[in-house]
This record gives sequence, C-alpha cells and structure tokens, in this order.
Amino acid sequence: MINKLYEIIPRFGNNILIVTGKSSLKKSGKWDEIKENLEKLNVNFSQISIGGEPSPEIIDNAVRKFQSEKLDLIVGIGGGSVIDSGKAISAMYFKQDSIESYLEGVGTKIHDGKKLPYIAIPTTSGTGSEATKNAVITKIGKNGYKKSLRHDNFIPDVAIVDPELVLTCPPSITAACGLDAFTQLLESYVSTKSNPFTDALAYSGMKFVKNSLISACTTGSNDIHVRSAMAYGAMISGITLANAGLGVVHGFASSIGGYVKIPHGIACGTLLSEATRVNIEKLKEKIPESIELLRKHAIIGALMVDEYLINDSDINKYCDILINTMDDWIKKLNIKRLGEFGLKEDDVDEIVKKTGLKNNPVSLTPEDLKKILLDRL
Amino acid sequence: MINKLYEIIPRFGNNILIVTGKSSLKKSGKWDEIKENLEKLNVNFSQISIGGEPSPEIIDNAVRKFQSEKLDLIVGIGGGSVIDSGKAISAMYFKQDSIESYLEGVGTKIHDGKKLPYIAIPTTSGTGSEATKNAVITKIGKNGYKKSLRHDNFIPDVAIVDPELVLTCPPSITAACGLDAFTQLLESYVSTKSNPFTDALAYSGMKFVKNSLISACTTGSNDIHVRSAMAYGAMISGITLANAGLGVVHGFASSIGGYVKIPHGIACGTLLSEATRVNIEKLKEKIPESIELLRKHAIIGALMVDEYLINDSDINKYCDILINTMDDWIKKLNIKRLGEFGLKEDDVDEIVKKTGLKNNPVSLTPEDLKKILLDRL
Repeated sequence: MINKLYEIIPRFGNNILIVTGKSSLKKSGKWDEIKENLEKLNVNFSQISIGGEPSPEIIDNAVRKFQSEKLDLIVGIGGGSVIDSGKAISAMYFKQDSIESYLEGVGTKIHDGKKLPYIAIPTTSGTGSEATKNAVITKIGKNGYKKSLRHDNFIPDVAIVDPELVLTCPPSITAACGLDAFTQLLESYVSTKSNPFTDALAYSGMKFVKNSLISACTTGSNDIHVRSAMAYGAMISGITLANAGLGVVHGFASSIGGYVKIPHGIACGTLLSEATRVNIEKLKEKIPESIELLRKHAIIGALMVDEYLINDSDINKYCDILINTMDDWIKKLNIKRLGEFGLKEDDVDEIVKKTGLKNNPVSLTPEDLKKILLDRL
Repeated sequence: MINKLYEIIPRFGNNILIVTGKSSLKKSGKWDEIKENLEKLNVNFSQISIGGEPSPEIIDNAVRKFQSEKLDLIVGIGGGSVIDSGKAISAMYFKQDSIESYLEGVGTKIHDGKKLPYIAIPTTSGTGSEATKNAVITKIGKNGYKKSLRHDNFIPDVAIVDPELVLTCPPSITAACGLDAFTQLLESYVSTKSNPFTDALAYSGMKFVKNSLISACTTGSNDIHVRSAMAYGAMISGITLANAGLGVVHGFASSIGGYVKIPHGIACGTLLSEATRVNIEKLKEKIPESIELLRKHAIIGALMVDEYLINDSDINKYCDILINTMDDWIKKLNIKRLGEFGLKEDDVDEIVKKTGLKNNPVSLTPEDLKKILLDRL
C-alpha cells in the first residue's frame, strides 16, 4: 500500500523532504526500497532523522536548514514523534520565528494555517497523528512542557496507513502505542465534547483494539490482520480525539511528559485504569445527573467481554469489567510505573499543579489527581 | 447555525451565486433573512432557482449564464436537487462543453476535478449530498437516465447542516427523504464495499433515523431534536454511500427515475423492504458463505427493536423484524406504489434491463429484479 506514495507524490511536486526516525526504517530494509522508488520517480529528495519526541529546537533547526530548498512536499514515515515532527516542519516552513511562539499555552502568536503539503505514513499504531490537526512538542525539565501546535489545516493532506509497516514494531513499543490509542478512544468517547459521530467511531476503534492489543504484542505480532486492527484503531483514535478531545490521562501525560523522559504511551497506559477508576467513582457520587456518562463507561465494559449493556442495573458490573480489563492489560504487557522514569513522591504536587483536566467527563480535585498519581508511582 | 455562513463566505471571496429551490425558502421567510445578511456583508450575489431534479440543460444553461460573472463561490441552499445542482454548477464552471460529456455511463470525458468552491446547506434530511462527491443529473423518458457527475474534489468545501432549516419541511417530503437516507445507510452497511469505518457510522445513522423517522413526519415535526436526528442520519448516509457504495434499490431508483417522474426518496422507499426481503432470501440460499452478510442484516433488525444480535440462532428472527419494520414504515408513511407514477407492467422488462446492481450484497437475476418491481407496481 505504501506504493500509493509514488502515485501521489507527483501531484504535489518534485522537491521533497522525507522525515524518518533514527534507525528502524533502515533496519527493516524499507528505507532502501523507498529510496529506490523515489529515485525511479526522478524526484529530488532530502532526508532528516528525528530521534525521540521533537523539541522546539529540533523543529526550528530543521526548518532553518530546509527553508532555502524550495520544497514542494514533506513526507513523514515513522512513529508518532516522526509524524508530529513532519507535521510541525511543514507548518513552520513559511515562518521565520520559533515554533515556541505558536505553541498552545506557551507562545502568544496565532498560526494562520499556511503550511507545506504533508503526507503522513505511520509505522506504529498509536497516536493517530496521521488524522489529527496538532503536533505535540516536548521540552523536558522543571520548566518543561508538552504542548501542541494546532490548526485545522495541519491535518495531513494524505495519510497512508499500511499495517505492513508495523509488522516489525517490537512488543514494548506496540504495547505502549496500543495503550495510547485505546486511551485516546476511551477518553474521546466519554469526553464532554463527544458526539454521535465520534461515539460511533470510538466504539468501533475500541472493538478492534481490545480484540488485538495483547495478540499484537505476543503471538499475533506477525499477523497482518492483527496489525490492521491496531492500525485501524489508532487512526480512528486520531479522528475522535481531534473532534471530541481527551481527558485527565492525557492531562497527566502532558504534565509528566514535560517533567521526566517517559514514552507517551507508557504514561497513558500506566495511568489509564486508575484514572478511569477514579472517574467512575466520582461519576457515581453524582448520580442521577451522571447516569449517561456511567452508562457510556459500562457500554465499553460490556464491549470488553463481547456483551451489550441492556439494563442499567448492570452498569456497576460492566464498569468493573472495564477497569479490570485494563488492569489486566497493564499486567500482561508489563507496563512500568511512573517511579521507574524518575518521578518521585516529592514531584507529585508540582505535577498536579501542572495537570489540566482537558475534556474529562467529571471534575476532579487536586486530591483526586494526587491519588491517581500516588497509586501508579 | 446558518449564521456560520456569514463568517465563512469572506474566506472565499466577494462574488457569490446562491442556488435555491423554487419557493420553500422564500415562504419560510429564511430567504429574506439570508439576503439581508449578505447585503450587510457587502458581497455581490446573484441567485438562481432550480425546480425539481436537475437535467443537463438546466445545469448547462446556469453555467453559461454565470460563467462571465467571475464568481468566487457557489452556495446551495435547499433539498437534494438544489444541493446537487449547486455542486454540478460549481464543477462545470470552468468547462465549455455540456455536463453530459462528463456523466458516468453517458459521456466519454473524464473530469479533472477543477471547480469553484462550494458550500452546501441542506433544507431536507435525505440525500446526504452535502457529504458526497457526486451530483445526480436526470433526463426523463424512454432514453432517459439518472447519472452522476463524480470526482473526489466535488465533496462540498463546507457543509452547514442546520436542523432548524428542516423544521418547515412537510410530512410527505420528510418521509421520502428519510426513507432515502435510511436506504442509503442500509445499502452501504451491507454493501460489498463496506468497511469497519463506514459500518460504524452507518449503524449509528440507522439508530438515529429509526428512532425519529415516524415522529419527524407526524407529532415530532416541530421538535428540533427529532429533526437533528434525521439531519444527522442523512449526513452520515452521504459519508457512508460515498465510501461504501449502494445496492439494488439505488440501481432501481436510477433506472426508474430516468423513465418516469418520481421523487427519488419515494422510489427508494417503496422498493426498500421488498428488495431487502429478496436480498435476504438469496443470501439464505448461499449459507454458509453468506453468513456474515445475513448477520449484518440481523444486527440492523435487532437495532430496530433496541436489541442486539447475540446468537446466530436469532438471525432469521431479526431479519424478519428488519423487513417488517420497513413494511410498517411504508404503510404508516403512505408511500405510494410505482404504478401511481405511470410505471406499467409492460415497462418492467425495459427497467430490469437498465438496472445495475451497484454494490448489492448478493447477485440477483433479472427474474429477481422483476419480482421486486412487480410486487411494488
């Protein structure tokens, strides 16, 4: 399916920048194949490797380096960090100032949406960034952050979602990415901004992810159907998060991810079931107003065991099943605790201060947030 | 929500053609309001009324008339015929030849996709044309046809789906449009080209339509929630048909609609349950290969009574419920038979010859097609 790329490129022009990760594409042999095909196409292409989550400096330097080259198109091939990097470079290509000036909650400038055309080709099934309008930029440390460059125009012009490219993704990354995708689907499903359109898609995405997550990390890692299911779930998670927003787990992933170096998917995965448990507890305190949101959690709990919520009397049962299923995933996939990435009890208050609730289905107090963090330290 | 229009127009320019229907917009007072707002915006606008389904002549004449005006944007406000007319005019604006040359199965030219920007604002909940890439053009008579001008670029640049605009839509039109939307949802759901993305949306669309169809035509016609549900279902039906295709009912709607003058939604509605009955019969003959498609019909049957298909042993039961529900709708909504639009038994062979199966879930013989038609004559 990646062959579609060679049909599509000529629509945009002849001068291309390819953004890739550090090494996995080369190791898999795919990079040589891509290079060969681009040479056959007679396009001029440069390449840049991005290792890890992009910082403002990485993006600014890449933009300065290639601004003089009169590019027609950027193509990003890699995991979430690479897809976001390509998106950010394409967005900053016509700007002379730093990306920091345009980051939400960091800079003061509003981006006008002018960008280079961008093709996103994910090689992991996680962020769904191939379908979103934002790129996440990370600066780590006491004054660190994880913030978005966002504009409707930044949705990639083309996304090529080819599960074959994910076949060589190792189990630990598959697990982290898969949990990120599931978190995005669940958070957008119960989000205060959810709507029937995003609900229908998020439910469908969770159905595929729950059927394939463990398998993709173990015996099914080489099964294209399993990888397709995960790729589908991840792409859908991008669509739903872009339209319905996210919740407290992503609030934490942002504050923690700017504080210590932790893979985004691990930050989400390790907090997911505990945060959901607290959300459900708080929602139960607010019955009857909260019944619709509890029902939504129960609907997904039922989905976890291929059942349906028919009677509201089963809401508690299925909410428990949802939490237990996620607990089980975290154990089976050996998802590490926050402490293993250097987060200490002393940091918790600072993290809580920096954590936004986003579109979480229920309001949480600083004590609630503290409880979630301490439980996963 | 239609107020969004006045924020959006300046993005595209200053010279606008508004395409409307014959009278309903004026009768409702909405046209005066729109005109006033456009005058405040200081845009130059012309207006053209389209009565009924657009023929090649209507589109060609409109294009010739406005080609010299250097338009920046076309806005279509009306039912499916109006939305399709605006779409076709915007698509033909840069062409010197007739639209017939580009119609599928009629002309020989391939459209390059160049068009004027187009904003679609539906005032009925039916075709979902605000979300599709085709415009249906009709020529009635012995050599008549109902064929599409189609290109990915023809998806409207902006669609404003405001259920308030549908509140004044009379019961008979609400019924015909609602049945068209449901037909599109069901046909795309069981289509040979369906996929998890379109399935999730089609299921969601059918859930909303089945809850609101009868109400929208009777006691709930003035209820904005009922109208919203129908507007949502219709818009979704456009997305699913554009991505998954349609089945034999729309094959008939095309052949019959080019033969006699019949509202498109009536043609679909009157044939829907009988065609589904025959599809299900044929699928049953092909068990076990057809089990997945039978299951899909049963899932929708269960949805009709707010239940879920859990055991395959219930497939027959729920398939019957699906057919009976649709039979019931046709009776309650007084959907006329084909004979009332001038179709005679003598015409049946000719119609069958002209009917394509599109992406129908199962192959049908000319005898099958004849049976469906005769049953609804």
